[in-house]
Amino acid sequence: MILRLDELALDLPKPKNPSANDAAAIQELLGGKFGEMSTLMNYTFQSFNFRGRDRLRPFYALTSAIAAEEYSHIEAVSYAINLLLTGVTERGKDPVPGPLAGAADARNSYHFLASGQAALPFDSMGNPWTGQYVNSTGTLRLDLLHNFFLECGARANKIRAYETVTDPCARTMIGYLLVRGGLHVYAYAKALEVITGVDVKKIMPVPPLSNAKFPEAVKFMEHGLHRELYTFSPNAYKEAGLIWNGEHPEDGSQLVVKEGAIKGVPYPVLEEEPQLSAPGEDDFDPEMFKDIAKKLGIADEWKQRHG
Amino acid sequence: MILRLDELALDLPKPKNPSANDAAAIQELLGGKFGEMSTLMNYTFQSFNFRGRDRLRPFYALTSAIAAEEYSHIEAVSYAINLLLTGVTERGKDPVPGPLAGAADARNSYHFLASGQAALPFDSMGNPWTGQYVNSTGTLRLDLLHNFFLECGARANKIRAYETVTDPCARTMIGYLLVRGGLHVYAYAKALEVITGVDVKKIMPVPPLSNAKFPEAVKFMEHGLHRELYTFSPNAYKEAGLIWNGEHPEDGSQLVVKEGAIKGVPYPVLEEEPQLSAPGEDDFDPEMFKDIAKKLGIADEWKQRHG
Amino acid sequence: MILRLDELALDLPKPKNPSANDAAAIQELLGGKFGEMSTLMNYTFQSFNFRGRDRLRPFYALTSAIAAEEYSHIEAVSYAINLLLTGVTERGKDPVPGPLAGAADARNSYHFLASGQAALPFDSMGNPWTGQYVNSTGTLRLDLLHNFFLECGARANKIRAYETVTDPCARTMIGYLLVRGGLHVYAYAKALEVITGVDVKKIMPVPPLSNAKFPEAVKFMEHGLHRELYTFSPNAYKEAGLIWNGEHPEDGSQLVVKEGAIKGVPYPVLEEEPQLSAPGEDDFDPEMFKDIAKKLGIADEWKQRHG
Amino acid sequence: MILRLDELALDLPKPKNPSANDAAAIQELLGGKFGEMSTLMNYTFQSFNFRGRDRLRPFYALTSAIAAEEYSHIEAVSYAINLLLTGVTERGKDPVPGPLAGAADARNSYHFLASGQAALPFDSMGNPWTGQYVNSTGTLRLDLLHNFFLECGARANKIRAYETVTDPCARTMIGYLLVRGGLHVYAYAKALEVITGVDVKKIMPVPPLSNAKFPEAVKFMEHGLHRELYTFSPNAYKEAGLIWNGEHPEDGSQLVVKEGAIKGVPYPVLEEEPQLSAPGEDDFDPEMFKDIAKKLGIADEWKQRHG
Amino acid sequence: MILRLDELALDLPKPKNPSANDAAAIQELLGGKFGEMSTLMNYTFQSFNFRGRDRLRPFYALTSAIAAEEYSHIEAVSYAINLLLTGVTERGKDPVPGPLAGAADARNSYHFLASGQAALPFDSMGNPWTGQYVNSTGTLRLDLLHNFFLECGARANKIRAYETVTDPCARTMIGYLLVRGGLHVYAYAKALEVITGVDVKKIMPVPPLSNAKFPEAVKFMEHGLHRELYTFSPNAYKEAGLIWNGEHPEDGSQLVVKEGAIKGVPYPVLEEEPQLSAPGEDDFDPEMFKDIAKKLGIADEWKQRHG
Amino acid sequence: MILRLDELALDLPKPKNPSANDAAAIQELLGGKFGEMSTLMNYTFQSFNFRGRDRLRPFYALTSAIAAEEYSHIEAVSYAINLLLTGVTERGKDPVPGPLAGAADARNSYHFLASGQAALPFDSMGNPWTGQYVNSTGTLRLDLLHNFFLECGARANKIRAYETVTDPCARTMIGYLLVRGGLHVYAYAKALEVITGVDVKKIMPVPPLSNAKFPEAVKFMEHGLHRELYTFSPNAYKEAGLIWNGEHPEDGSQLVVKEGAIKGVPYPVLEEEPQLSAPGEDDFDPEMFKDIAKKLGIADEWKQRHG
Repeated sequence: MILRLDELALDLPKPKNPSANDAAAIQELLGGKFGEMSTLMNYTFQSFNFRGRDRLRPFYALTSAIAAEEYSHIEAVSYAINLLLTGVTERGKDPVPGPLAGAADARNSYHFLASGQAALPFDSMGNPWTGQYVNSTGTLRLDLLHNFFLECGARANKIRAYETVTDPCARTMIGYLLVRGGLHVYAYAKALEVITGVDVKKIMPVPPLSNAKFPEAVKFMEHGLHRELYTFSPNAYKEAGLIWNGEHPEDGSQLVVKEGAIKGVPYPVLEEEPQLSAPGEDDFDPEMFKDIAKKLGIADEWKQRHG
Repeated sequence: MILRLDELALDLPKPKNPSANDAAAIQELLGGKFGEMSTLMNYTFQSFNFRGRDRLRPFYALTSAIAAEEYSHIEAVSYAINLLLTGVTERGKDPVPGPLAGAADARNSYHFLASGQAALPFDSMGNPWTGQYVNSTGTLRLDLLHNFFLECGARANKIRAYETVTDPCARTMIGYLLVRGGLHVYAYAKALEVITGVDVKKIMPVPPLSNAKFPEAVKFMEHGLHRELYTFSPNAYKEAGLIWNGEHPEDGSQLVVKEGAIKGVPYPVLEEEPQLSAPGEDDFDPEMFKDIAKKLGIADEWKQRHG
Repeated sequence: MILRLDELALDLPKPKNPSANDAAAIQELLGGKFGEMSTLMNYTFQSFNFRGRDRLRPFYALTSAIAAEEYSHIEAVSYAINLLLTGVTERGKDPVPGPLAGAADARNSYHFLASGQAALPFDSMGNPWTGQYVNSTGTLRLDLLHNFFLECGARANKIRAYETVTDPCARTMIGYLLVRGGLHVYAYAKALEVITGVDVKKIMPVPPLSNAKFPEAVKFMEHGLHRELYTFSPNAYKEAGLIWNGEHPEDGSQLVVKEGAIKGVPYPVLEEEPQLSAPGEDDFDPEMFKDIAKKLGIADEWKQRHG
Repeated sequence: MILRLDELALDLPKPKNPSANDAAAIQELLGGKFGEMSTLMNYTFQSFNFRGRDRLRPFYALTSAIAAEEYSHIEAVSYAINLLLTGVTERGKDPVPGPLAGAADARNSYHFLASGQAALPFDSMGNPWTGQYVNSTGTLRLDLLHNFFLECGARANKIRAYETVTDPCARTMIGYLLVRGGLHVYAYAKALEVITGVDVKKIMPVPPLSNAKFPEAVKFMEHGLHRELYTFSPNAYKEAGLIWNGEHPEDGSQLVVKEGAIKGVPYPVLEEEPQLSAPGEDDFDPEMFKDIAKKLGIADEWKQRHG
Repeated sequence: MILRLDELALDLPKPKNPSANDAAAIQELLGGKFGEMSTLMNYTFQSFNFRGRDRLRPFYALTSAIAAEEYSHIEAVSYAINLLLTGVTERGKDPVPGPLAGAADARNSYHFLASGQAALPFDSMGNPWTGQYVNSTGTLRLDLLHNFFLECGARANKIRAYETVTDPCARTMIGYLLVRGGLHVYAYAKALEVITGVDVKKIMPVPPLSNAKFPEAVKFMEHGLHRELYTFSPNAYKEAGLIWNGEHPEDGSQLVVKEGAIKGVPYPVLEEEPQLSAPGEDDFDPEMFKDIAKKLGIADEWKQRHG
Repeated sequence: MILRLDELALDLPKPKNPSANDAAAIQELLGGKFGEMSTLMNYTFQSFNFRGRDRLRPFYALTSAIAAEEYSHIEAVSYAINLLLTGVTERGKDPVPGPLAGAADARNSYHFLASGQAALPFDSMGNPWTGQYVNSTGTLRLDLLHNFFLECGARANKIRAYETVTDPCARTMIGYLLVRGGLHVYAYAKALEVITGVDVKKIMPVPPLSNAKFPEAVKFMEHGLHRELYTFSPNAYKEAGLIWNGEHPEDGSQLVVKEGAIKGVPYPVLEEEPQLSAPGEDDFDPEMFKDIAKKLGIADEWKQRHG
């Protein structure tokens, strides 16, 4: 089970230049083979399927904690896409002028025809994420090796997406993912090292380009986000610290495990897109909830939103 | 962001007759078009993509809370599959006798060749779950209608899986899902009703077979699980109560919203399957963690597990 | 069995601005999850698979009649695509000047490399229509609910395609589909109502944008096409009238069932595209058929075409 | 546009041994690469997309007529599957005894979990039919060659399915398809011959096994079904006779074109399967239609069915 | 088993105008249904699966020799794509300026996000090549017919790709493939003729456009490449000459079988793309290999490259 | 370009118990995500796409040599499948007795309906191999890491297939692949080590089960096949020896590079399966080739086969 926090892990700046094609490219980080759906689902299933986990608890805990964090990554990529798509077509409720005319030339028509200018679990070519991308062999050593490779592959994706899209909204998000993904690379490397004695960490950086080259990543590293593994649990996964400890391989800073989630921020506001009836229901009157809100003891929250 | 609880929402009995083919059938509830991966991902993306959500907060809250619960459902199905697969091949580390010989006739060879006798995001025919199954149009009315339909389709799947597999492990899980899924059907029905005034609830039961026909479901209903919508959040989604209130359409009991998660239980133990090296690492010595455990202040937890 | 009429259900104006990318967008209405291939095949298989149909004849008849009509919809969309693609590359038989040069930047390269500038059962992103899109559970209530949802989803698709493409050829076709699809929405709504007593019709319009906002649709409504259910059969499906009767929910006009097909028009002329050898056979001499035509008693038809 | 006849092209005997696995194998003839969905959709799209058709009318007419016939083939295969699946699980409305228990070992679980023991557009391995199987290049010579090959490939499929399933229901259907498909092979061969002068017919039989080896096929040939091309249209496609004429390459009988459809028979009765709620609605009272039936002038038909 | 020659079958000129979208279009010839991956894998599997091959050796030999040649075709297409993609983004190691900015609008984002500006087994729409494209029925007549059709379909693809892309690099490659593919069409035609007596060759050209219309093809024909079947084996497949002999159907020249491979040329140089770390390892010092090179007796080769 | 040797790399014993389901399981090693099609195509495309290869020649040579060897692996798996499928149905040309009756219950119906009881590029669940399985990022370090992981994943597959199938034909093939694949694991490990200095080899064995546990593998190791890297080229790839040298990590034996291919054996005989017309052409008279054989100077070879 999970508890959802209704918060994003980082503050996403509003795009300077919303762009349908930039959003299309960023989809690779969401639904691509090396996207965040893949990291989320690989580690999630590996954790569900972990046999003999008591004997190897720290490995289970590490995988589970990272799995939980990945949810916040599909969230972050999705919001970045949604922001990049906000306002890229003409707003209005009259279909006649052809408010979506630009969509015909856009790289990803699903953003307009299928979603409400918003993210979908597809990659940059419009191919859907698929369960084929999940590896969960049950063999710890092989799953860890896979995860190390997957994070490296995901790192390459992020770097290339960064080089493709220059908007600060996307780049802030990618900078953040590079830092957190970088931590995950090292985490799986250290787990492999515990078992095999091999200093896998030294294979990094893969690709051979340091996070230090990305100003947006550097900012997050200054806050220590490259060395703090969060349990993303109120009460479990602290044993991840049996693996995640010692010095950071790049800057020698102290590796720590922190309980719970990263301190989040409210989700960015997603403006309505009336030409897509997203969300529609223009004549809906929230007033009808007033009395029930009172009964439920959430009258104050209600007032705050609806006056 | 999420916090993961490392607990299952219900107690799964150990299977009486572990069975590879039963496990294969149950995969439909996990990775099928109407499986729990679909409900999880549909509502999750709809919540990420919800434009103008402040104006329509109760609908957003409802979808988000249910989305969060669905995670516990992919978990429940996965553990049921894992238990059904535990012990179905010969245990042992010597490959020569052919410990997996039975796998050649099994309905789902991935359970043996790809996973460690464990769940994967595929359906009962071995077709992968795909992002094609996600609908997130951004149009509230359409998304709610979709969700109502999806839950009805999922209900049909569960009923048919129940009729296919008689083992109590699977049936307890399905009984639970029927009750919780039944609640979700009504929740989306009520949401549609708020907007349109149509008493959508009365379309139920779809298929026309009441949950009361399933003894395992009845048990969970006796504990009120058919009328308690959980927020699956420490601090959000209470506004779901603006929709989820009044009387239950079937038994007239009081509909309530509860904060947080359902009271869970520890995950069932998944025994090792050495013939699959699942997890392997037989000569791993947890003793090496002893000192670090002390330093990290988790020496007691560590002792508890490793003596 | 079917009889084919070799006629289109409506008159499609020649495009003002043939456009490969407009054609690519329109493909969503043909081979997309919510395209006409989906409505056609869903209802067709549901009708083939309808168990106990004698007892529930009107529902069978309704589904079958609509299934038969959907054939004319894949036809209409295909011809619109074909017309939009006519003339978008340079005509000529010499490959050297690169007559298809524009195809390299077009959104759907299959239109040029795989087809002869013509429609294929793919969606707007070039993903093929698949049998995965067919739902035929055999449970009447669930299939009807699905169909109601599918038509609503298809309606959203059409609206968005309309907003994307402004050419009168495409819009005439979409206006027509909005009207006929609108009728289908209400038909399934009424069928559900007969069984459940729920006034499902009032959920409409989904999305919340009336057909009255689309001038091309209005024109077809003026001819009553929103209230006339055709049997699309010479001798069957009249029992659909047991469901399709009473007043139209929007304008109170009389709902009627008409036997046979909508009055059609000759297919639009599709000019040759020699650069694609479509159709090629430039030196073919129809004269060779003259004598056989006489023998077969179709000399007149033959003369009319070939002089 | 089409008119649907609500009749099957042939009389299917009730299976002697209904069998889920036989039904699964027969699915190849429906949704496989060389199944009837493929022939239907290939010729249908080729006919929609036929450029310059006036100049090459007989070829257009031939393809269109065959396209129309293929609808009756997906129908025939579907009904054979439906009959093979009728009664293969325990009938009854109580889920507790596990009426679908046999489904866990069946080759195609979709027949039970997704459909109501009925056909779906998937192949014998549960892979969906896809638009990828459609070839419509617009180049007449290439499309005809493709069609000739496709029919040969389909012929191999039918022969092998015949050798797999011995039940008379399936074999009657396959015998029929062998004869009609055989006619289609020769039809496309003759069309190619008209253009190229090559006696393509002599490549037959492919595979090198004559239809005369299949007693069920022989029966249909005795009725001349191997030499009569039907237009499957009330008023079009007679020009197919410009190609389809002369002597049958195998027995020298006269090739003829007949207007309209093959003389059909009522669809076989598909019994209800209550354990699948197929169709459900057990308490539905058709009496409610009585008065409307009278008003619509179909009181007699109504009475006939419902007494 | 194979021996690889590390040579390309033809000299590819450096592109005049490298172009991402041209490269995207050319992908159809690599990973499309009618691309070289398809011809390679169809004939390869047919040769592995050839039952009773001793009795029908010349057919086996012919298929095997062509299968072996197809490897050089996936190679040729890949190198053309790689050259077309070389230099299309800004070179440099600093990610901040967004060196891949152009990729957001490119037709195939995988070229930048997944590969190092290089070929992948996907088609022009980014759909992966799949084993579904392989036909290997084991029935000789049917497989040969398929191959004849496949080569004709591939020929149409090549012609259309030629008409789409005007760059000499691509066109040289396509001219070459037209000639070699043309030979394969005739080879399978002649094989069919041997068995059936039908002069299948005369169906050509399909599409009806002679290779003589393509200047780049003509050049290769002047060197006889349209009449020389190579065994692509040091010691096998000469029996292909039992089929491939006599006069060329187009120009009456002598058909011959040559042992071994076509005379090749060194692969074109693929420049580094540092913005993609392709290949990266900038500080790698080949000097470390010097001593080993000496020991292995390849010091001279080593010196030649690294000085 | 390649030269094909028409030889298999190893001697495959005739199966003791031909078995359709064993063959179905073995398909995973051919067309599965971690099957030999994947290793073949990954390394092949990486070699085509290798930028800056002169500077990093030994890595290019290593990848290319292994790529070339993988061809012999898809061959070996295919022949093992073909042998396992030989004779599993009733032989004969009369379709009436239902010679393929057993196919209805077999795990892979494609073996009978699509192929001539022979291998296809699909996995053990009948899902096709797809280009999605190819990784070719162009970043050397990442590609090598991928390859190391891929070989480990493939190793797990082989071990599990070995444990599933006990027939000596399959196990000999798997034993061989374990040895050669084991060599490839170390080869990529050493390549990574050269670049990063990390002793990646020590991560092995993955899964943690030594090849020494597989008697069939041990036999091949006794012949040194675990330490001899073949160039599979007549004249290239010797530079692979700059990486592949020193001592074998397991037994300290000398690592060597050998030019050319492994010494092969004639392909096993694949008996005809007349019920599938595989190959058919029963009345074909090879005598017709006699004279041409003489002319071509291959009269002796011809005589040897046809007397």
